[in-house]
Amino acid sequence: MRLRRRPGTREKLGAYEDIVLFDPANYRGRWNTYFKNSNPLYIELGTGKGSFLTTMAALYPGINFIGVEKAAEVLLRAAKKAKQGETANLALLWLDVTLLDEVFAEAEVDRIYINFCDPWPKKRHAKRRLTHHQFLDLYGRCLKNRGQVHFKTDNEELFEFSLNEFCRSRWQLQNICLDVAQRGPEDNVRTEYETKFTAQGHRIYRCEAVKPDLNETTAKGLF
Amino acid sequence: MRLRRRPGTREKLGAYEDIVLFDPANYRGRWNTYFKNSNPLYIELGTGKGSFLTTMAALYPGINFIGVEKAAEVLLRAAKKAKQGETANLALLWLDVTLLDEVFAEAEVDRIYINFCDPWPKKRHAKRRLTHHQFLDLYGRCLKNRGQVHFKTDNEELFEFSLNEFCRSRWQLQNICLDVAQRGPEDNVRTEYETKFTAQGHRIYRCEAVKPDLNETTAKGLF
Repeated sequence: MRLRRRPGTREKLGAYEDIVLFDPANYRGRWNTYFKNSNPLYIELGTGKGSFLTTMAALYPGINFIGVEKAAEVLLRAAKKAKQGETANLALLWLDVTLLDEVFAEAEVDRIYINFCDPWPKKRHAKRRLTHHQFLDLYGRCLKNRGQVHFKTDNEELFEFSLNEFCRSRWQLQNICLDVAQRGPEDNVRTEYETKFTAQGHRIYRCEAVKPDLNETTAKGLF
Repeated sequence: MRLRRRPGTREKLGAYEDIVLFDPANYRGRWNTYFKNSNPLYIELGTGKGSFLTTMAALYPGINFIGVEKAAEVLLRAAKKAKQGETANLALLWLDVTLLDEVFAEAEVDRIYINFCDPWPKKRHAKRRLTHHQFLDLYGRCLKNRGQVHFKTDNEELFEFSLNEFCRSRWQLQNICLDVAQRGPEDNVRTEYETKFTAQGHRIYRCEAVKPDLNETTAKGLF
């Protein structure tokens, strides 16, 4: 997913200031004013070249989409794609995921997509995986009650790790799929990476996780 | 797993009446009197030829094990193996799993093992799969609070189905493993079937599921 760093990329991003927001923290707690409606808010973490999110934004005009990407070079590609799509319900943020709650207020987000994130295969890097329980706590703060994370990966070990992390953090899993090409949802929208890897016969894993009601689980000692 | 029906098998089982119990319902609610101790009670559903359970009984003398098997021919093999092992903490029942709560009282069982059960691949047979939520309800009645089901299979679709059924029924999953040979628990005891299939390079899936506190989840409307 990493592209070579090209000189002037960050400056070029400035040409897309109607799509790429450079002051996203200003909209914290009031993203509805940015989109000028109160539609649900779905965000994608590591939006890459933007194929998934631009397709989703075109398919679902009644939902607001925000793509988060820390690599400027890739974000530029996504911005070009978004510009072509001309969808009013799409914004892109040049942002590291760890800063998510500086940009989204508590319970502001309806859904989070994580597609083919870096598996960080070494055990000592486990904390960097976007489904590590510390990240899940972060997502839990931004998500509404019963908000969901939709997760896809082609990495078996990352998927196994993620299922266990979701369970450990008391997220409610649903629609777990061990082979998306065979038994995935009919409305599955593929990322660039997914299209390429599915064509090569690689297996894609998927699951959805519903945010737990933390007050209930801790107060009542459910498990 | 099915063996050809041999004449006289049922009669032959009678020779193992110290291991194979023909009146198990008599011990319902008082299996501690059968084993003459109050050790934890672990049962295996579809115990087959008995390799897993006899190994477990020898490894863990402080736990009482009961194997449940409806096929008399296979149970006879398990009985012969158990007789050789001479373990006082092992009993076998010639029983259909659907009758489980006629033999075990509410909250009498500490753990249930389900190893390589019939996958029943046709959708219209889903209710026969031993991890269908109706079976989970049955196990929930027999299991103690925080009692566990330990599940292994080589069938990917059955594993996927089972994960979703456990989640649907609000069981708490843990130690999900998508490749037991690579990342399974160190103390994993293999069944005959598992040994054969692992040698052939087949993948084995495994998970543990903790019984939900049904009063809590329904009363508080957690999800």
